Amino acid sequence: MENRLRVLIIGGVACGPKSASRLKRLMPDADITMIERGRLVSYGACGLPYYVEGVFPEVRMVSETPVGILYEPAFFEKVKGFKTLTRLEAIGIDRRRKIVRAKNLETGEECDFPYDKLVLATGSSPIRPPIPGMDLQNVWYMRHPDDAESMVAEIERQGLRKAVIIGAGYIGVEMAEALLRRGLEVTVVEAQDQILPQFLDYEMATLVGKNLRQKGVHLVLSEKVLSVEGKEGKVSSVKTDKETIEADLVLVGVGVRPNDELAREAGLVCDPKGGIVINGYCQTSDPDIYAGGDCVVNHCANPAIKESMFLPLGSTSNKHGRVIADHIAGISSPFVGITGTGVCRVFDLTLGRTGLTEKQARMLYPDIETAIWAGPDMPHYMPQSKPIVIKMVASRSSRKLLGVQAVGMGDASKRLDVAACAIFYGATVDQVINIDLGYAPPYAPPMDPLATAANVLLNKLNGLARGISPVEAKRRMDSGEDLVILDVRTPEELMMMRMPHDKVVHIPLGALRGKLDQLPKDKDILAFCKVSMRGYEAQRILNAAGFDRVFFIEGGLIAWPFELWTAG
Amino acid sequence: MENRLRVLIIGGVACGPKSASRLKRLMPDADITMIERGRLVSYGACGLPYYVEGVFPEVRMVSETPVGILYEPAFFEKVKGFKTLTRLEAIGIDRRRKIVRAKNLETGEECDFPYDKLVLATGSSPIRPPIPGMDLQNVWYMRHPDDAESMVAEIERQGLRKAVIIGAGYIGVEMAEALLRRGLEVTVVEAQDQILPQFLDYEMATLVGKNLRQKGVHLVLSEKVLSVEGKEGKVSSVKTDKETIEADLVLVGVGVRPNDELAREAGLVCDPKGGIVINGYCQTSDPDIYAGGDCVVNHCANPAIKESMFLPLGSTSNKHGRVIADHIAGISSPFVGITGTGVCRVFDLTLGRTGLTEKQARMLYPDIETAIWAGPDMPHYMPQSKPIVIKMVASRSSRKLLGVQAVGMGDASKRLDVAACAIFYGATVDQVINIDLGYAPPYAPPMDPLATAANVLLNKLNGLARGISPVEAKRRMDSGEDLVILDVRTPEELMMMRMPHDKVVHIPLGALRGKLDQLPKDKDILAFCKVSMRGYEAQRILNAAGFDRVFFIEGGLIAWPFELWTAG
Repeated sequence: MENRLRVLIIGGVACGPKSASRLKRLMPDADITMIERGRLVSYGACGLPYYVEGVFPEVRMVSETPVGILYEPAFFEKVKGFKTLTRLEAIGIDRRRKIVRAKNLETGEECDFPYDKLVLATGSSPIRPPIPGMDLQNVWYMRHPDDAESMVAEIERQGLRKAVIIGAGYIGVEMAEALLRRGLEVTVVEAQDQILPQFLDYEMATLVGKNLRQKGVHLVLSEKVLSVEGKEGKVSSVKTDKETIEADLVLVGVGVRPNDELAREAGLVCDPKGGIVINGYCQTSDPDIYAGGDCVVNHCANPAIKESMFLPLGSTSNKHGRVIADHIAGISSPFVGITGTGVCRVFDLTLGRTGLTEKQARMLYPDIETAIWAGPDMPHYMPQSKPIVIKMVASRSSRKLLGVQAVGMGDASKRLDVAACAIFYGATVDQVINIDLGYAPPYAPPMDPLATAANVLLNKLNGLARGISPVEAKRRMDSGEDLVILDVRTPEELMMMRMPHDKVVHIPLGALRGKLDQLPKDKDILAFCKVSMRGYEAQRILNAAGFDRVFFIEGGLIAWPFELWTAG
Repeated sequence: MENRLRVLIIGGVACGPKSASRLKRLMPDADITMIERGRLVSYGACGLPYYVEGVFPEVRMVSETPVGILYEPAFFEKVKGFKTLTRLEAIGIDRRRKIVRAKNLETGEECDFPYDKLVLATGSSPIRPPIPGMDLQNVWYMRHPDDAESMVAEIERQGLRKAVIIGAGYIGVEMAEALLRRGLEVTVVEAQDQILPQFLDYEMATLVGKNLRQKGVHLVLSEKVLSVEGKEGKVSSVKTDKETIEADLVLVGVGVRPNDELAREAGLVCDPKGGIVINGYCQTSDPDIYAGGDCVVNHCANPAIKESMFLPLGSTSNKHGRVIADHIAGISSPFVGITGTGVCRVFDLTLGRTGLTEKQARMLYPDIETAIWAGPDMPHYMPQSKPIVIKMVASRSSRKLLGVQAVGMGDASKRLDVAACAIFYGATVDQVINIDLGYAPPYAPPMDPLATAANVLLNKLNGLARGISPVEAKRRMDSGEDLVILDVRTPEELMMMRMPHDKVVHIPLGALRGKLDQLPKDKDILAFCKVSMRGYEAQRILNAAGFDRVFFIEGGLIAWPFELWTAG
């Protein structure tokens, strides 16, 4: 037994148990111990908003196997064959002697764990805003099953009614839906001028925000929370730089930071912005110490994107776990990095992105082109067909696809995953239109939305299509500039919904070739339709007739993130 | 006007109107004429089964724009700017003089169309089996809106009740659902021993067949139709080599063949098996004649697959249309080929494949490895989580992914499209597990099914996992061989469903390490669970304990395509 490889894993969620389980399958003789400071191991924190919403009945289901067996030390011992110790916190690493010192959080005792290989899977912690009131009762984070369980219990016990969510990231918007569906009044306060500022560009986020508001969520943008106020030790309101919002429940979702203190104290290289630095095999600067999961920074799989990213996700943690186990066992299966894919459901919308947003891309590249496309996710004659809006970001010089965002009631998740794969392989926009995606009426129109969006971008890159983003169109319309806003839809469509502007000229596309005399050649014309396919056709028809100042509003009314005039 | 480029397009569906519309946008001065022998243009034939099913109310919706405008000559003239002539059949090409001779099918008159560039988009025609009875009343094909409209009308008018579908391809299985949902009794007769023989391997097809039978479709496999019998000029039964099946409606779905006669007669190079041969710009052997859509053979986008494929799909036709228009207009946007992606919904199952099936791959490569994986499409705690079964085919030497099949109630379409993209880029199995696919509970488990399936295949390629396919396991179980069938599920799971075999040993995985003495080392052990993740763990535990003859049944009970004993 003396020469069994001793592997110590710090952290019992996602990367930790994954690497331990796989390693035990690869090296049955290894002596593997996993320590976790919490009481629970191997839970799916991403499921917590759905528990709060009431989608499934018991919070312990996020820490069970699919057949209902609890992930607990006895399970890992019996089924997976490694030792798990909970309520044990690692407090120091002696790299020279290869010993981790840990403290029993129940008894206060300290003990030493010698290791041959060490795995840091210490996760991340929610950022605690440096404002007064964070210690009041009824302030929650949403990181651990205990958070969700106590929130649900206290909503019931105290009859909590008014929730304020600080921060409009993924957790913020998911929890807005969960709490609204539980019957609470929900306000989301975000310091920036849009929701999901890390994930979506302004117009895509504003489209989601419009939907959230329609569902009854109060969105408060561009306001900074100054304090959480209390009465008798409990939350009573949230004070921003502009107003005071009544509240009896506060959820804080302003992001997480990697738990890299242990690594820093042990002298391992960490990113200045936080996160342990690892190589392709998840080794830290000490080759006998691996790290994975939420405590590391990732590099990008697409060599076009050189920035390292801190993007903690269970999917990445599991990949790290496998890579670590393989490398310890002598199998080379490098982790090639992430592409920054994220997806989220809010009410009936799917939203997400992969790669870079336009904002991020413009900070890295001088020659960005973008396109917004809107349309149905399957042929219009299928009654379950629903719209999606896709935004693509590419480099003009390399024609490489750098990022894709998608928002819609239709199947956006499929298009995001295909885009993630394309970006993983360094796809050019030209290639994307050639991918042989599955076509059948219940799944896609003959030209998949992703291909059609790429076509629009390609037409822009090739100088054929002259699009204008909805945000820019709105800005110009609001500026009082002398423009022609050209609606090329049918009269029936016009009855249903209109662009809220008093200078709209209406000429259905089919009549356009015969009514050219109604349009000026010396003014900018912004054409649009429901999705701006006809808007683009109008641009080409007018160009052919000698009109040079024509643009189409990208994505048309479906992608228009602002108010519209609707019938009834 | 004399030097306007004259472009003639033969064929008014998919590739034809796509190339005409795009070319007009690129070259507003071009003189473009599209001729079509039918009465209708630009319809989506793939939608017809859904019309028959009653999913949408009017068949004309398959030939309308999303806002309800009929694609007709006046529409193309006014909106798209090109001329469309219907009921006009091209009967000969004089390549030297660059003239197409065409016949007016209403008047019988013939006329000549000079061209500078010619586009052949002549489509495909259903194969008519060379058996008696094909001219009887109530025998249908399903290629044209008229087929669907007359079938629905005649079912109502004559009160047709018993349908026999000849051929179990995509059209056959889609129509089986459509007719069953309309209230007819449906029998599908297929000469091969499985449904969808061109698209799925035996075990995947058998899984779909099991579902079709559960829904009430009579599946008759391995029987050859000899004739359709009639009474008073109408269908009365279908005679196979083994039985006579009563029928008052017959749908023929035994495939289509490319309409390449015009091209052959003009001396253009065609594939010996049928289909016009084109280069990457969709040019035929005459550079002034392009061809696209169902009348051509395609090459494969993945250079690992050298076979040309005849796989007529609206998605490919539209890609061809764009490439043709671009090339005529001087833009180089080559068509890189297809990957053989197809998807289809039958009742609550999604099924499809991309790349090669195992059967196809084994004909091309000597070193094929496969894996079958089954599991939920999102975390088990999400109530809408549903199973999918994925089969992967790869080359052992290159580790390239050659094909993926998927079947299931869960979101298989997304995984197929991602796989199509991966195969498009020549992915290795090792790369597939690294793709950064979107993770959130409503969309995927932390490790996406596609990645997990690739993990299984990788474990097989690396010699860690020893899987056995369900078909092989069944064969060995039925052979009377002295095997141990090891069920490692919980006692609760055992109550619900069992492997129908009298030698099953039941040891839950958690108890396995303590009960090794109950298993023999000198017999083959086939382990399984619900999806065979635990089956694989059992294999590794037993290997570590010195058992060398252990295999797990791939995909477990979920992917088991044969009968099971179920409770109640």
